[in-house]
Amino acid sequence: MHSLSWDGQSLIFLNQTLLPGNVEYIKCEDYRIVADAIKNLQVRGAPAIGAAAAFALVLGSREAAGKTDNFWEDMEEIGAELKKTRPTAINLFWAVDRMLTKVRICHTQDKPLQETLKVLEQEAVAIYDEDKKVNAKIAEYGAQLFSCSKPIPVLTHCNAGALATTGLGTALGVIRYAWREGKISRVFADETRPLLQGARLTAWELKQDHIPVTLITDNMAGWVMKKKLVQAVIVGADRITTNGDVANKIGTYSVAVLAQQHDIPFYVAAPKSTFDFTLASGDDIPIEERNPSEVTCLGGCRTAPEGIDVFNPAFDVTPNRLISAIITESGILTAPFEQAIAKLNKNKGGS
Amino acid sequence: MHSLSWDGQSLIFLNQTLLPGNVEYIKCEDYRIVADAIKNLQVRGAPAIGAAAAFALVLGSREAAGKTDNFWEDMEEIGAELKKTRPTAINLFWAVDRMLTKVRICHTQDKPLQETLKVLEQEAVAIYDEDKKVNAKIAEYGAQLFSCSKPIPVLTHCNAGALATTGLGTALGVIRYAWREGKISRVFADETRPLLQGARLTAWELKQDHIPVTLITDNMAGWVMKKKLVQAVIVGADRITTNGDVANKIGTYSVAVLAQQHDIPFYVAAPKSTFDFTLASGDDIPIEERNPSEVTCLGGCRTAPEGIDVFNPAFDVTPNRLISAIITESGILTAPFEQAIAKLNKNKGGS
Repeated sequence: MHSLSWDGQSLIFLNQTLLPGNVEYIKCEDYRIVADAIKNLQVRGAPAIGAAAAFALVLGSREAAGKTDNFWEDMEEIGAELKKTRPTAINLFWAVDRMLTKVRICHTQDKPLQETLKVLEQEAVAIYDEDKKVNAKIAEYGAQLFSCSKPIPVLTHCNAGALATTGLGTALGVIRYAWREGKISRVFADETRPLLQGARLTAWELKQDHIPVTLITDNMAGWVMKKKLVQAVIVGADRITTNGDVANKIGTYSVAVLAQQHDIPFYVAAPKSTFDFTLASGDDIPIEERNPSEVTCLGGCRTAPEGIDVFNPAFDVTPNRLISAIITESGILTAPFEQAIAKLNKNKGGS
Repeated sequence: MHSLSWDGQSLIFLNQTLLPGNVEYIKCEDYRIVADAIKNLQVRGAPAIGAAAAFALVLGSREAAGKTDNFWEDMEEIGAELKKTRPTAINLFWAVDRMLTKVRICHTQDKPLQETLKVLEQEAVAIYDEDKKVNAKIAEYGAQLFSCSKPIPVLTHCNAGALATTGLGTALGVIRYAWREGKISRVFADETRPLLQGARLTAWELKQDHIPVTLITDNMAGWVMKKKLVQAVIVGADRITTNGDVANKIGTYSVAVLAQQHDIPFYVAAPKSTFDFTLASGDDIPIEERNPSEVTCLGGCRTAPEGIDVFNPAFDVTPNRLISAIITESGILTAPFEQAIAKLNKNKGGS
């Protein structure tokens, strides 16, 4: 299963809104379709969004090269448009900026358009390939956290799996490695309302890999911890600030508080591209609020009275004090996170 | 709106599984239909289950009186059958035992069947009427907890409202009173997966009463507290043990942990009939596990892969240390709960 792939002409992506019922791939050559797919969560997960946006710029560059003489301005506009699709996951901005940097270098160098198009395709493919490798490194480092002699059950929230990346996944990458090494016995998957990424995506991915998984509703996580049914929590991230605060899917904060209250380690797995080295703390992260209908309807059925007020933040922020470790492709970061992340920033060229 | 009513011949109950889309009342003269309604959650909420079971015994007594000469044995059997419908809420056992005590007294006194039937109907009506009055007393006492000069927003979980009782509700009774007195500004309602009693029932009830309500998914409760959007939590209960541990809808425990971590008072509103004076602690409460399909399907749609393992406890237990106060019809209990509940037990005749 691949969340995304590139055939040289088109981006092919799995429409994740239809899972687990339907496995449908969408093939497209129009960057607008990719932008909409990001908005509508057909493509989701911070690293996957980044890679999809990079390929959207490749598709956009071919269109721009074909029809106008404002190529360089058009590319800036397409980049700006893509950045508007979702506000919280930093990987989107990181990938678009990385592509636009290439655009600007080509512009400065007066590179012919055909060469520029090639440079852009290479850069998008590099982003895609790097994410795959980064996932494997994260998985390898993360599995080292599970050194116990007896395999333990763990809990995860939302989907930070293959579907959220171009490779094995971040949190689920770690779980896959640790499970193969006999360190994890079972995964409890929070269903993750409102859009059920845990039920629809994580449970589906793990089942395909024959990793034992138990699905629970989000409000059972505390009770599962109280009953000592899980011994570690591992999640992904959408943005990490320089002090180690972590924005991730709504509900992550509650799980982190509950984990700390039950003396259960709480791990975050994320690539360096998820770090926002410009923000001091999680208070500065913009939190996307989505349509109330995500909360009031499910599978086309209305589950709440008409006209009801709804609060629907798509993310929350877990403060660094609740986090036991952040697993990156450069190693495992622990408190004090400010220092660890400053060091990571110095070495970020190494990604 | 009434969860239940009795017209002298039939029990009329609101089929709560169809709310908020359809308001459908079921009228029945067969105790088996009432038993099934309790099993299937058409009638739910600890006090409402108790009252419904009492009327089921009235219906059963009329059938038993009409067709066999084993009336007294039949009544014991019907009582046993009703007790099997749901294991956690103690009000069911309390109400059935109260009715069976009347049966046994009539038997000992060799009362004619026609008189016995009248005694039983009177007792069921008494249970029903008492619950109404008890709700009002709880609401009155509970509203005293909200004495602040400025109305505050509160959070509730599941439905402990009119639909869960024969009156105003327990937690929602308190909210109704405090809101009328200008002490509560808004209610955040956890949707309460898997069966969405918060979205379907609490939001519906409060909207009908024009009390401002904001619906959230369960996993948002922690974030709502972090953002200081609520300043108190109030919930109902299905069983309270002699040390003050509280069994209530799954997710209550997580909310209680989160409330404590955010210095938010956590109140439980429940009648004396919810106390189990025979159990020392919440560890002894049987926790009902329900069908996995409640978690894997919603509104007829499958939301998780086929064949997935599910954990579906319908309740959890909140330890007394997380509870700021328990509001009963006899007053407000605070720690040390053992002593307060022992005193309540002594005076329990007064219900």
